[in-house]
Amino acid sequence: MAENQRFVLIGLGAFGREIARTMHEHNADIIVMDRDPSVVNQMKAEGFKYAVQIDNLDPSSLARFVKPDDIAILSMGDAFESNILTIEILKEIGVKTIYSRATKDIQLKILEKMDITEILFPEKQEGRRFALKLLNRDINFIDEFAPDIYLIEVPIPDRFVGKTIVDLEIRTRYNINIIGLKSPASDTEVIVNQKMEYVGFEKTILQKEHSLLVIGKEKDLEDLVKETE
Amino acid sequence: MAENQRFVLIGLGAFGREIARTMHEHNADIIVMDRDPSVVNQMKAEGFKYAVQIDNLDPSSLARFVKPDDIAILSMGDAFESNILTIEILKEIGVKTIYSRATKDIQLKILEKMDITEILFPEKQEGRRFALKLLNRDINFIDEFAPDIYLIEVPIPDRFVGKTIVDLEIRTRYNINIIGLKSPASDTEVIVNQKMEYVGFEKTILQKEHSLLVIGKEKDLEDLVKETE
Repeated sequence: MAENQRFVLIGLGAFGREIARTMHEHNADIIVMDRDPSVVNQMKAEGFKYAVQIDNLDPSSLARFVKPDDIAILSMGDAFESNILTIEILKEIGVKTIYSRATKDIQLKILEKMDITEILFPEKQEGRRFALKLLNRDINFIDEFAPDIYLIEVPIPDRFVGKTIVDLEIRTRYNINIIGLKSPASDTEVIVNQKMEYVGFEKTILQKEHSLLVIGKEKDLEDLVKETE
Repeated sequence: MAENQRFVLIGLGAFGREIARTMHEHNADIIVMDRDPSVVNQMKAEGFKYAVQIDNLDPSSLARFVKPDDIAILSMGDAFESNILTIEILKEIGVKTIYSRATKDIQLKILEKMDITEILFPEKQEGRRFALKLLNRDINFIDEFAPDIYLIEVPIPDRFVGKTIVDLEIRTRYNINIIGLKSPASDTEVIVNQKMEYVGFEKTILQKEHSLLVIGKEKDLEDLVKETE
């Protein structure tokens, strides 16, 4: 959706590479950089046209590749000194949009003082997400949404099979919002290969193989989940 | 929702700690372990009743604390040798549910051979999530959902203000599903403090301050987002 915007990604560890690959998949205009020539060559082999080996602590070297309007993403992991020095250099170049990774709480505190666009802390973000998923592990998928509001996937209770969502009055009975109907592409497929209907499924006859994606308060969702047990 | 289930978390770096803290917040039964006594003491100070300093490579020491029915989470980060050895010891104890972190692609490949419940790779998971969010950065929130299906938050276009969702026929016109209406708790609040209605908002008069949480295909969502520009 964002057009004519260039992304500059510095640091090609697991986090940086995944950002780069996802952007590449979506045809974003991205230039990737790392100090390590072997990592840079690997990205070139993966099809990255703009992959450069760079000394990110050399202001003139950075200035050659980075423009003030670029969106900079710093994902240098534990090379924290390098990370904060690079932020300063980018600011001197005039870059206004800077995202930087933190890997420790103390780094978070320092980055907060540096007035950048947003701090990324994948361990924290994913740690919280995983714990919430695990606490509801009878359900396939959970995401934290808003205070006390969750988005979950629930299997079809036996007594729902053969009926429709309209027949069952799920929305009114449970005070939840049904946002999708999932059916597996095949028995062995993982979740990403499931087919999801997100409009017009209200009158579909529910099968045992289906699951519902619903949003609601924890208490209301629990009532629905109890039906599936 | 999960009751009487105990979690054993080994490794208290940023990822492990965030999992532990989230579980603690939700009153889960959790025992946390690390080799480093200072980290263990910090967790005790935070209110963790069961925090133990442990040599996780000593089978008898692990067997004293871990039961076969426990759910084990290994978050040892770069201590990968320690990580795989601990998995073997846990399997010998009879633990059936084991989650383990990977921090590198090569670790992922090895862990895949070890037949555990699930491999966690926060850098990959969060990297992808962040890139997708950034590619749609005009929107406050985005999550990948299913192939080509996205969940996004969109601001209220000017021409929607003063009307209701029923009046506007958004669902039929744009082929998307509206799953929530958000209003800010105050001008300066961050997203987590927003109020969200997820049922019964269809007849609410839309205000400039509201935003809609919608789910749909990328193309259909783009059509709606264009209205907001």
